[in-house]
Amino acid sequence: MSYLEFGAIPLQVNPDLQEERDQASFHVTELTHIIDGGAEKTQLRKRLEKLIYSDPDFRRFPDVRTFGTKSEFYGASVLKSIKLFQLRKEHQWTDEESDIVHSLVDHGHALGLHHAMFIPALERLATDEQKAKWLTIAKQYKILGTYAQTELGHGTYLQGLETTATYDPGTQEFILNTPTISAMKWWPGSLGKSSNYAIVLATLITRGKRHGMHPFVVQLRSLEDHQPLPGIKVGEIGAKMGTLSTDNGYLILNNIRILRENMLMKNAQVSPDGTFTASAPNQANYATMVLLRVRISEFAYTNISKAVTIGIRYSAVRRQSKLDPEEKEAKILEYQTQQYKLFPGLALAYAILFSTKLLKKKYREAQTEIMKGNLQSLPELHCETSGSKAFCTEHMLKEVEIIRQSCGGHGYLAASGIGMMTSSSAPLVTVEGENTVMYLQVARYLLKRFSNAKSGEQIEGCTSYLSMNHAPYLCPFLSEKDCRNLSSLCDVYRYRAFIVISRVVRTVQTDIKDGLPQHDAFNKNLVHLVRAARAHCYFNVVKDFAEAVKELDASIQICTVLISLCCFFAVHGIVENSGDFLQTQTIGVEQLKWLKNLQTSLLAEIRPNAVALVDAFDYHDITLTSALGSYDGNAYERLYQSTEKDSMNSQEVHSSYHTYLKPFIQEMNKAKL
Amino acid sequence: MSYLEFGAIPLQVNPDLQEERDQASFHVTELTHIIDGGAEKTQLRKRLEKLIYSDPDFRRFPDVRTFGTKSEFYGASVLKSIKLFQLRKEHQWTDEESDIVHSLVDHGHALGLHHAMFIPALERLATDEQKAKWLTIAKQYKILGTYAQTELGHGTYLQGLETTATYDPGTQEFILNTPTISAMKWWPGSLGKSSNYAIVLATLITRGKRHGMHPFVVQLRSLEDHQPLPGIKVGEIGAKMGTLSTDNGYLILNNIRILRENMLMKNAQVSPDGTFTASAPNQANYATMVLLRVRISEFAYTNISKAVTIGIRYSAVRRQSKLDPEEKEAKILEYQTQQYKLFPGLALAYAILFSTKLLKKKYREAQTEIMKGNLQSLPELHCETSGSKAFCTEHMLKEVEIIRQSCGGHGYLAASGIGMMTSSSAPLVTVEGENTVMYLQVARYLLKRFSNAKSGEQIEGCTSYLSMNHAPYLCPFLSEKDCRNLSSLCDVYRYRAFIVISRVVRTVQTDIKDGLPQHDAFNKNLVHLVRAARAHCYFNVVKDFAEAVKELDASIQICTVLISLCCFFAVHGIVENSGDFLQTQTIGVEQLKWLKNLQTSLLAEIRPNAVALVDAFDYHDITLTSALGSYDGNAYERLYQSTEKDSMNSQEVHSSYHTYLKPFIQEMNKAKL
Repeated sequence: MSYLEFGAIPLQVNPDLQEERDQASFHVTELTHIIDGGAEKTQLRKRLEKLIYSDPDFRRFPDVRTFGTKSEFYGASVLKSIKLFQLRKEHQWTDEESDIVHSLVDHGHALGLHHAMFIPALERLATDEQKAKWLTIAKQYKILGTYAQTELGHGTYLQGLETTATYDPGTQEFILNTPTISAMKWWPGSLGKSSNYAIVLATLITRGKRHGMHPFVVQLRSLEDHQPLPGIKVGEIGAKMGTLSTDNGYLILNNIRILRENMLMKNAQVSPDGTFTASAPNQANYATMVLLRVRISEFAYTNISKAVTIGIRYSAVRRQSKLDPEEKEAKILEYQTQQYKLFPGLALAYAILFSTKLLKKKYREAQTEIMKGNLQSLPELHCETSGSKAFCTEHMLKEVEIIRQSCGGHGYLAASGIGMMTSSSAPLVTVEGENTVMYLQVARYLLKRFSNAKSGEQIEGCTSYLSMNHAPYLCPFLSEKDCRNLSSLCDVYRYRAFIVISRVVRTVQTDIKDGLPQHDAFNKNLVHLVRAARAHCYFNVVKDFAEAVKELDASIQICTVLISLCCFFAVHGIVENSGDFLQTQTIGVEQLKWLKNLQTSLLAEIRPNAVALVDAFDYHDITLTSALGSYDGNAYERLYQSTEKDSMNSQEVHSSYHTYLKPFIQEMNKAKL
Repeated sequence: MSYLEFGAIPLQVNPDLQEERDQASFHVTELTHIIDGGAEKTQLRKRLEKLIYSDPDFRRFPDVRTFGTKSEFYGASVLKSIKLFQLRKEHQWTDEESDIVHSLVDHGHALGLHHAMFIPALERLATDEQKAKWLTIAKQYKILGTYAQTELGHGTYLQGLETTATYDPGTQEFILNTPTISAMKWWPGSLGKSSNYAIVLATLITRGKRHGMHPFVVQLRSLEDHQPLPGIKVGEIGAKMGTLSTDNGYLILNNIRILRENMLMKNAQVSPDGTFTASAPNQANYATMVLLRVRISEFAYTNISKAVTIGIRYSAVRRQSKLDPEEKEAKILEYQTQQYKLFPGLALAYAILFSTKLLKKKYREAQTEIMKGNLQSLPELHCETSGSKAFCTEHMLKEVEIIRQSCGGHGYLAASGIGMMTSSSAPLVTVEGENTVMYLQVARYLLKRFSNAKSGEQIEGCTSYLSMNHAPYLCPFLSEKDCRNLSSLCDVYRYRAFIVISRVVRTVQTDIKDGLPQHDAFNKNLVHLVRAARAHCYFNVVKDFAEAVKELDASIQICTVLISLCCFFAVHGIVENSGDFLQTQTIGVEQLKWLKNLQTSLLAEIRPNAVALVDAFDYHDITLTSALGSYDGNAYERLYQSTEKDSMNSQEVHSSYHTYLKPFIQEMNKAKL
């Protein structure tokens, strides 16, 4: 074969991958329908994929994604935004359809915040009159907006935000200011270069009094020439680890005057004379945060399922070393250590999938109540979504990184798609509620519910087990076989969570009894409180996964493989956190031995269906954008092909040779020996 | 303050950071000298820093590092290479001096492989005659070379390399070929665009017989115009997660004929008639691999110490939320959860530092023996360096990522320096021996030594504890106070390693007794074998750290703080792996409770010296390149300042507005309501 032929992609699927598909015990399409939520949903997704990918601007191949300047990416991303707006209008997409399209254009787009935050905020926070004014033109794309909350000095602690909006009754205007460097808005997407409007969150000051954070509509740039308006300094905050396409921005406001009517007044009002009134509880704002956290759990599913698709397909076509000295080199997927890197991620993808489906259902039910003004379910929903957000993103990021490592050196190449996945997964542990803060909010809720339970209240919802009566616990695992029982596994997780929570409650209470103020007692036990929240969340995800599998309306083949996977997920979680389980005496050392054996047995059991289980996620090759993970498995050819598009290869001799290298070599040759 | 003043960097150190420095219990300079290896070494380093950083081309600010094209980076990197070559010649740097400079130019440089691999390989593998020919002109930079071993299809399994060198006695030449796509060289640094020569590793075929892998000197590019020679296809493999400055390359050889004398013949020869003879054992090649692994452990120290410098300094100047509702917002360093994210990395940095110093000393001693032809110490050195490489890089990468997360959103910005640190840390778990493969090599050695010990042999070196007599083990922790004893902590680690290793030996032996071939028994237990190797490595690092601290010739203040840190390192490791310690019954649940309490007490104990402990690493601001971690702690001003250099901000209105956005907005405004 000459080197000119190396780049040609074989027409057939790599036989090593085909062999995997041939040995699957179930029909992949059936599982794909379950994942999508029904055959008709799969069809809808495929129709939208076809529509989007028929446009070359949406075919993001590695050359576009990895070999350009930030400015080029951003420009391409503006174009994508506009095309999406036009398609959305033309096809009158429902929210569901928009969500599907968004999951295909996964690296965000320049004007993404317009639909993601600007319009929803107007819908939520504007009066009817204000909606008529702003929402209408926003939906017509006559103005393009974003939502500016986070500041350079404050993300988590909203009460600390420093931007001010001072009411001037003389002119009936608000005067917006950025009083210090840490007060500048910093991070909002679509802010740096794209938007001409923003909803700015600022501390309202009227009649010399501060009234907390409120939303103000502020025009940032001229609608004629896009120049920033006088008094406004706005720009890009700079390169990040990933998310090249978004112009996360900063914003400095210098005595910006806006009309009184630009304060969004659905929940609180300032009258012309400066009188402040609040008409709705602050909690109403929670509902949107809650939805965003559900969304992020869904992103976690997307990232881990893509990563494991790449990792498992590549491991089926990469051969390295010999298992048996007499045989040819083995697929790396055969190695137990490789399975141990990949299958936890595979199981996690399905766990997050089913758990998030359930959470979304709960969200919808609660949302209906909230719209009716019944906020009762909000604290529970807040706990569940905070916990889900933290658990899913934490575990996803960890497993994506392990999967990247499982791809060896090639996983470090941009063309692999998996390196970029770690970069785009990294922010999810921080955005929309930093994970440690999320766990501590869960912990606060757990402490409250625990004390409710203690005082005899009947607890319902995700913390109902806290009213567990103190009957002596007996480990349900009397033999290795028992460890396969999903109900028993759930029991073990439940009891472990219960013990960990009750212990930290006791410690905090003791510290208070010993004279510490409540906040000090809490602060002294932060590490233990996070542990308790993690134990609670782990139990919930295991339980959700187990229940979903039990209730599944599917073929026996699919049920069998998902039961194995769910069992592996639960067993792996115990082994990985075995110190906690042993310490709470929910299992003993004998049980741990059985669980470790079962864990490796399950690796072998899952092995034959590994490729089919990732095929079922049904990612389009363009969505994956991975030379290692393409459906046909021709990884080496695709890697080699990707080099052709690298700008470094556009010339045989790089320009720096002429500038630097040649003069140097000439000088060295002239030098005396 | 107007927004124009925001960018000015205050002249004084941030008072929040100064306060930390004022409360340190020890003299930072004293610790810096210990880290550097003496006051004169610190002076040497500072002299070289001054020399290098006086040249603006070496002042790598975020603008240079993060806002350009790959091609621009590479060009700048070629220039840096040449300047380094010139400086090296001019100042006649020793190897030590070169190493120091290399640690300052940490992202590698385009021609880095010339000194790192090409010249050492010639020194190691060439005959005296060949040295006279190649080494001389290589040292004079008349030719620029690299070392091409890894192929697209093979990294770990060297026997699988497919490039061939077939001897033709008719012309007394070797004919080099890349027979398949997976045989192309892929990954070598400096190969894509920079080098005009390479040492190519290829399977030697002579007289119809294969003789394993041997090194051949191959000219790749013309010395006149740098064009690839006929039959050679060479180029860049494409963008990666990090390491922008190196041209990792691919190479396809199509019937390339080279002289017989181009085979480097120190250890094996082909005579003119094609007769093959080998004169040295293959093991001689190990020594270089071993050195590279020590180097990588040193890189692990560099990365974790830089990351934790950034994380701790930033945590001292960032204030968020209130610990006490009556007080002002707290430094995030005050939060126990934040300390729990940062101090394990801090302790790890010192653990790797001391452990690697010791390893390097052992390497030097062994090297002297090896040069004398005594290869006896090689297997032990191989085990120690493989284990150290895997342990240090695995833990470093994990902690760097946790530290990145501890910096919140700003840690995701390129200007923070920490995001890039994760990208540049990521390859270290794969290069020069993939970590899982490394651990399995350690495991193989452990099994062998265990069986030697069993048969009564007196074991020395790092596995000497395998000859432990089976006296009943008693946990040395009888109270929480005992858990602070470094010797006792070492004992616990030692015994845990011993138990884990003996159990996996038993399992493998049972599987063999049950009829499995040895390789199958091994493969069936890969996961357990890796666990055993990890337990061994953890013990060794804890022991090295504890011994170094005990033997330290330093002030009482420094000894005290390092003892706390070492104790924290050991205690944290037990808590994190408590399942293993409980399962091996090296500790019980009561002890674990004490250890967890001690762990949080130690967080509070280390807290006042946290900043001083990272100051002692003494990184120059240019070396750190971090807006968050600069010595003066003016993080917000530096972040804002970094945006000025972003090309996205060179114009108020981005070009895409004119191309895409304006026509779209105009169209929307024309559209009917």
